[in-house]
Amino acid sequence: MAGMSPLDVLSETLGPAGCLRAEADLAPYAVDWRGVYRGEPVAVLRPSSTAEVAAALRACAELGLAVVPAGGRTSLCGASVPLAQGPASVVLSLERMNRLRDVDAPGMTLVAEAGCTIEAVQDAATAVGRFFPLHFGAQGSAMVGGALSTNAGGIRTIRYGNARDLVLGLEVVLPDGRVLDDLRRVRKDNSGYALRHLFMGAEGTLGVITAASLKLFAPLARRETALVAVRSPAEALQLLARCQESGAELVAFELIQRICIEITMRHGVNIPKPMELSTDWYCLVEVGAAHAAMPLREALEGALMDALEAGEAVDVVLCESEAQRAGLWRIRETFPECSRHEAPGLPTDTAVPVSAIPAFLEGAAAVIARDFERGRMVALGHMGDGNMHLSLQAPPGTPQGEWAAYGVGFEPAIEALAVSLGGSFSAEHGIGQSKRAAMGRLKSPVAVDVMRAIKAALDPTGRMNPGKVLPPA
Amino acid sequence: MAGMSPLDVLSETLGPAGCLRAEADLAPYAVDWRGVYRGEPVAVLRPSSTAEVAAALRACAELGLAVVPAGGRTSLCGASVPLAQGPASVVLSLERMNRLRDVDAPGMTLVAEAGCTIEAVQDAATAVGRFFPLHFGAQGSAMVGGALSTNAGGIRTIRYGNARDLVLGLEVVLPDGRVLDDLRRVRKDNSGYALRHLFMGAEGTLGVITAASLKLFAPLARRETALVAVRSPAEALQLLARCQESGAELVAFELIQRICIEITMRHGVNIPKPMELSTDWYCLVEVGAAHAAMPLREALEGALMDALEAGEAVDVVLCESEAQRAGLWRIRETFPECSRHEAPGLPTDTAVPVSAIPAFLEGAAAVIARDFERGRMVALGHMGDGNMHLSLQAPPGTPQGEWAAYGVGFEPAIEALAVSLGGSFSAEHGIGQSKRAAMGRLKSPVAVDVMRAIKAALDPTGRMNPGKVLPPA
Repeated sequence: MAGMSPLDVLSETLGPAGCLRAEADLAPYAVDWRGVYRGEPVAVLRPSSTAEVAAALRACAELGLAVVPAGGRTSLCGASVPLAQGPASVVLSLERMNRLRDVDAPGMTLVAEAGCTIEAVQDAATAVGRFFPLHFGAQGSAMVGGALSTNAGGIRTIRYGNARDLVLGLEVVLPDGRVLDDLRRVRKDNSGYALRHLFMGAEGTLGVITAASLKLFAPLARRETALVAVRSPAEALQLLARCQESGAELVAFELIQRICIEITMRHGVNIPKPMELSTDWYCLVEVGAAHAAMPLREALEGALMDALEAGEAVDVVLCESEAQRAGLWRIRETFPECSRHEAPGLPTDTAVPVSAIPAFLEGAAAVIARDFERGRMVALGHMGDGNMHLSLQAPPGTPQGEWAAYGVGFEPAIEALAVSLGGSFSAEHGIGQSKRAAMGRLKSPVAVDVMRAIKAALDPTGRMNPGKVLPPA
Repeated sequence: MAGMSPLDVLSETLGPAGCLRAEADLAPYAVDWRGVYRGEPVAVLRPSSTAEVAAALRACAELGLAVVPAGGRTSLCGASVPLAQGPASVVLSLERMNRLRDVDAPGMTLVAEAGCTIEAVQDAATAVGRFFPLHFGAQGSAMVGGALSTNAGGIRTIRYGNARDLVLGLEVVLPDGRVLDDLRRVRKDNSGYALRHLFMGAEGTLGVITAASLKLFAPLARRETALVAVRSPAEALQLLARCQESGAELVAFELIQRICIEITMRHGVNIPKPMELSTDWYCLVEVGAAHAAMPLREALEGALMDALEAGEAVDVVLCESEAQRAGLWRIRETFPECSRHEAPGLPTDTAVPVSAIPAFLEGAAAVIARDFERGRMVALGHMGDGNMHLSLQAPPGTPQGEWAAYGVGFEPAIEALAVSLGGSFSAEHGIGQSKRAAMGRLKSPVAVDVMRAIKAALDPTGRMNPGKVLPPA
């Protein structure tokens, strides 16, 4: 290869379809989907097999290039674009590794490559009478590799756990190109350290996930969905307890501030008014059962009626049709998009113990009243998991840049509040670039030390997704 | 501390109740409960708080002593006794750290110290109307720290997962005495690498788990239990599929060879004959529901009747009383003890994909017929998880030592068989001392390299439970 440039070496290794070098081809990979983070990859590598990923990583190791793994690139934290002022980097896109290697319906497992979208996995499970429960807004674009590398959450974790809980085994290519083949499909495996859990949530800083063996479930034969108006987060917490004790299994329990519904009705397409908006808070509750004969509706109805009678809820809509259910979920799921049409916002992603949700929301309101009085609180989230997405929204018409400058300090204040209540400053979106400083401020220094030791052990030259996850030195 | 011996230093640090030195006091900690592994600890440390564990580890670091963490000491692999010819070691027993720090019923969490028994945690959950599902034979003695350090399994993992799946946060003391406080009670936390999963399953080779925040569940309002006679493991697999599709949620699905029932009836106390033993294989099936109105019995009965009508099952007993249910479970749970009264055995602990169970059992029978014809196969296990416990049993009266000599090579052959079917050579008991050689033979060399790198990063002087988990160099 004497006389060849580093990029020639990579092109040679992966072929023209596997190594993009033209500026126009690189552009989509150089910016995150919110347009907040920009980098300048020297090339985009698109290997189509594990062997090609291994070859790419060996070549990058030889060439001293940093490697930024990417999937559907729906990260909200800038995890999948190179640093703006970082070392010479390639983006390693897994998008061409999109085969389903195995679907085992009786064994309730499925093996998917990193470039399969979450929706493709859901569909493959459904096709064999099974259910893959991971479910979040970006699921049509987000890919298995990214969802696992960030341990994605979503609305069904109250029942099925986070992404890592759905994984039985992984195939990972290490920074030096060696392949760690741990794609087992067994439900019990205590043969040494749980390496797969190290790569899940590491956002590509320790290696590249190329395939995963995933758990499937029995499909839900029935679902029941309700919207409940409550006066306060404390009442929502009481309702959650009533639902938990109803015997009907909760699949989702979302808390939604009235303003979120109003914003969605204003900017969304085909959004029905769900009920008279007479209170400030709404719970979107869904229960499910694998057995059609389970008296699911009666169980949920009972819990809701008890809440009404006890004066802990003001109004209830129990869905009568699939269309009505879809309408309610459209409110929840299109809110983030609609919110951007309303006014600039400064979003957060924190979690607290479920029982601390009322204190958290009170605390956040106090922070806003004291230090950010120009903004208003806009909050909704996965209350059943303690995970709220709370935003400081600008008055309509405020320029984005002005608002970002005004709200400096808002996200750190909310993150510190969550941690002070025994929670986490980063619930489900990950760290990427945007929360590195928070890692330095809020994570225990001992934990950071251990993470650095692991990073140094697995990626001694620091070329895997540099400037992500770990706090600045 | 000039002039003091190392043991004097430890006594000074922990007080007399916290540092046992008399030979008679050390004896119980010097041998594992099966009497197979023996070591010679120079002292037994029994700290009563996290601060004391930290002080003990700092002192051991200064003194260059190896540390063998121990809880209920029910390991089947010799994980909790020092090596016979190992370095100077203390046993660090967590038994005095047995406080429940927090029970949060609405939040569905509980924080327990490492020395709480699993049964104590179950009881504490029950007392507040919740359910802690981890369940295995030794639960009355086994402690939280050991159960998590070995990622214990048991009979309910088909529904609730292994021990690691029940953990939200950990407190760990690192080899140098620093405390890693990650005792969060939140269900979503993506703030960096999943350190807790590294310590779970590491059997004390990376640090000492001192407390854990655990998930609680809604209790089961109803359970239904059945014993089903089938002609073959293949029929058992068909029955499993029927039960999975019945809509009734499986809580346990055990496969039991006829000989196991016969041995238990012969040696057990108060063991009823469960049914006419007309076939070679039996499935012990339990389904559960959180809602009392779920037609659970009808669902299970339907699946079982369908199996009978399809000719895939020969006989069925559906329990009519709690006493009958308890009797069936007594057969399953006292078998290991009864088996020891029958004749020496060479037990194994492997897992394969559930759909490979018939091939696994056929393969094992072939191994025995070919190479170990003096013995007979005795098999039972958690079929729903693919985890069988298969033993080579000696003719009654054979001396233990003679049988061990005859059967050299049996366990390795079964482990290799499981791996060849895509399974694991170590399902739920861990590695300890007994499976180190298997780690060297059967684990991917890349995985072993990564484990060694992590071990070196977290325990650079190699003093934490030396000679466990990792294969010999």
